Amino acid sequence: MKHLNFDLILSALERVLPVRKEPLGLHEPSFQGNEWQYVKECLDTGWVSSVGKYVDRFEAELAEYAGVKKAIATVNGTAALHICLKLAGVEAQDEVLVPTLTFVATCNALSYCNAIPHFVDSDETTLGVDPVKLRKYLEEKTEIKAGKCFNRETGNRISALVPMHAFGHPVDLDAILKLCQDFHIELIEDAAESLGSYYKGKHTGSIGRVSALSFNGNKIITTGGGGAILTQDESLGKLAKHLTTTAKTPHRWEFNHDQVGYNYRLPNINAALGCAQLEQMDRFLKTKRALTEKYKMMFQDVPGVRLFTEPKFAESNYWLNVLLLDEPSFENRDRLLELTQARGWLTRPAWKLMHHLPMFQTCPKMDLKQAENLEKRIVNLPSSTFLGANYV
Amino acid sequence: MKHLNFDLILSALERVLPVRKEPLGLHEPSFQGNEWQYVKECLDTGWVSSVGKYVDRFEAELAEYAGVKKAIATVNGTAALHICLKLAGVEAQDEVLVPTLTFVATCNALSYCNAIPHFVDSDETTLGVDPVKLRKYLEEKTEIKAGKCFNRETGNRISALVPMHAFGHPVDLDAILKLCQDFHIELIEDAAESLGSYYKGKHTGSIGRVSALSFNGNKIITTGGGGAILTQDESLGKLAKHLTTTAKTPHRWEFNHDQVGYNYRLPNINAALGCAQLEQMDRFLKTKRALTEKYKMMFQDVPGVRLFTEPKFAESNYWLNVLLLDEPSFENRDRLLELTQARGWLTRPAWKLMHHLPMFQTCPKMDLKQAENLEKRIVNLPSSTFLGANYV
Repeated sequence: MKHLNFDLILSALERVLPVRKEPLGLHEPSFQGNEWQYVKECLDTGWVSSVGKYVDRFEAELAEYAGVKKAIATVNGTAALHICLKLAGVEAQDEVLVPTLTFVATCNALSYCNAIPHFVDSDETTLGVDPVKLRKYLEEKTEIKAGKCFNRETGNRISALVPMHAFGHPVDLDAILKLCQDFHIELIEDAAESLGSYYKGKHTGSIGRVSALSFNGNKIITTGGGGAILTQDESLGKLAKHLTTTAKTPHRWEFNHDQVGYNYRLPNINAALGCAQLEQMDRFLKTKRALTEKYKMMFQDVPGVRLFTEPKFAESNYWLNVLLLDEPSFENRDRLLELTQARGWLTRPAWKLMHHLPMFQTCPKMDLKQAENLEKRIVNLPSSTFLGANYV
Repeated sequence: MKHLNFDLILSALERVLPVRKEPLGLHEPSFQGNEWQYVKECLDTGWVSSVGKYVDRFEAELAEYAGVKKAIATVNGTAALHICLKLAGVEAQDEVLVPTLTFVATCNALSYCNAIPHFVDSDETTLGVDPVKLRKYLEEKTEIKAGKCFNRETGNRISALVPMHAFGHPVDLDAILKLCQDFHIELIEDAAESLGSYYKGKHTGSIGRVSALSFNGNKIITTGGGGAILTQDESLGKLAKHLTTTAKTPHRWEFNHDQVGYNYRLPNINAALGCAQLEQMDRFLKTKRALTEKYKMMFQDVPGVRLFTEPKFAESNYWLNVLLLDEPSFENRDRLLELTQARGWLTRPAWKLMHHLPMFQTCPKMDLKQAENLEKRIVNLPSSTFLGANYV
């Protein structure tokens, strides 16, 4: 292992990032639009909770923005994922294909359905599911019976694949969709990080049967905490709304619930924030792209590292910029994290790989070499929209 | 069945309730304190999401207010209940005793644990679990083996009892606690509706091993949507915080999660609302009590109905006032609902009994005569704090 030239990396970062008294977060929210006006209206009218015009408006505007038939606002991205799995028909004891390089929410949502994560490898060009490697693996390991895909070894059904657009960068959706069709597997996009990211001109989350968004405080837009389910299927959209609102059937006064439901409603006051944030997406995307360009330029002559950039088929929201070390090394990665954090820049590594977490260690998995390689090479850089404002 | 004298009831209501252009909700929130100031501070500082000082403050102030060691803010009351069940050790296939007269969230939370509701009857003096009837039933139907309670018929363990303080009115907690001790059953209080309600001087939710609160938009205080877990056990409190925050263990940068966790965090912006609301509890309780007194007076000479008032051992928050029909009759109840709603007063009945809902119809249950009687007699009256302001 070669040691990185940390001085060169730090001086590149110095030319992009401000030095502040308080630490510089990885992705700080920006409230420069109608946030206060909309939130104040909620307080003034008393409509802060689960019913209110901002929820309806946010859902309509999200659907339009993402080019889908229906968007259903939820209390967070994990809740959205949970319902997506139910909508796609994932059942207890099913296996669901997920990248090992993802945030834990993807796998937790599976556990809520008593389903089993089946870990798949990632691709260096997208940082997400590698469809070529996965196809070979499925050809070898699965069989189709009565139009359903089964794991030959465990005998369990494999009912869905949940690719995640890591750090906002789209996976190769055409190849993945084809794979899902060929193997009779439902496609659920974990688009938690990719609002504003496009695959061949289509918004991420508009291609899977159902998809999940997140508006957590660190995302490109935030509702405090929040998420959404996206779908092109009107009837699934209706069911999503029903399941997320305690499965209550309409009546003037009676409390009829027709199945076990969830209280996954996004409060109106949080939806108000979302409406104001969504209005600013164009600006956010422009400033983030400008920041990425700046980073790219600053790092182009720094040996041993490169800035990750979108694959040709994609237009990324560049939610979190990724500095990729050429050589896999926990030592170099951690030293870089230490040095940058000491300057008050809150960098971070990729998530710990899911198959290394204690509760998922015994889950089925394919060879995961590339994810293990990427884990040692990824460092996320501060990526707040305001950082790019000077470079637009 | 005798027909009620609806004219007399309506004219009693007219002397309490305003006639407005827009319908008068059952419980509308009141934002007359520091709500704006605290929420605006969140927007101005950018701290709207899952970390922030208002979450810590709200949790500390809630714990102090309710007289418990720890309060953990959650995204809503259902989430709080779900985690309470896990903290109390409820496992898949366990039966959990719950009143059939409750909101569906109590039973949904059980379903998330793959546990089975076992329905128990209610008492007319509290509208909650009848401990005398339940004791007799358990004596007959259960056996204790190795310090655990088992349903003799099904063979399942009965691991917990979840009494609910219906409409804010406390159940008889001494008798219920004794029962739980005698039968080796964990006591979980569903205090979703009873913030500000006391049992013999102790705050509801401070007696069970763990308890759940709700701050939904219709509750005595609201955070838009929100809830909390209360406990006297520091270590359970710690575990509650861990489970509700994705079970992440502390590290400068690594994403270590030691078990399947939940994203049940209350966003900071919602906690800010909660802090401002909690400051006004004394006023809210006073005005609500004054409203109840007024209702009581107006109905004292109306035949066929009476206003439900707190039992001697309790000080109720009177979250929702209950008009009790003397005789059980869906016909009278529904006619009264129709007539009042036609005037724009959003009255409502009690919840449909849980054992009548399709997903819970086959669950074990005791004789439920009293609950079935009460279902035909309860009408909730508009109970917003502002309605009592004139009568303080």
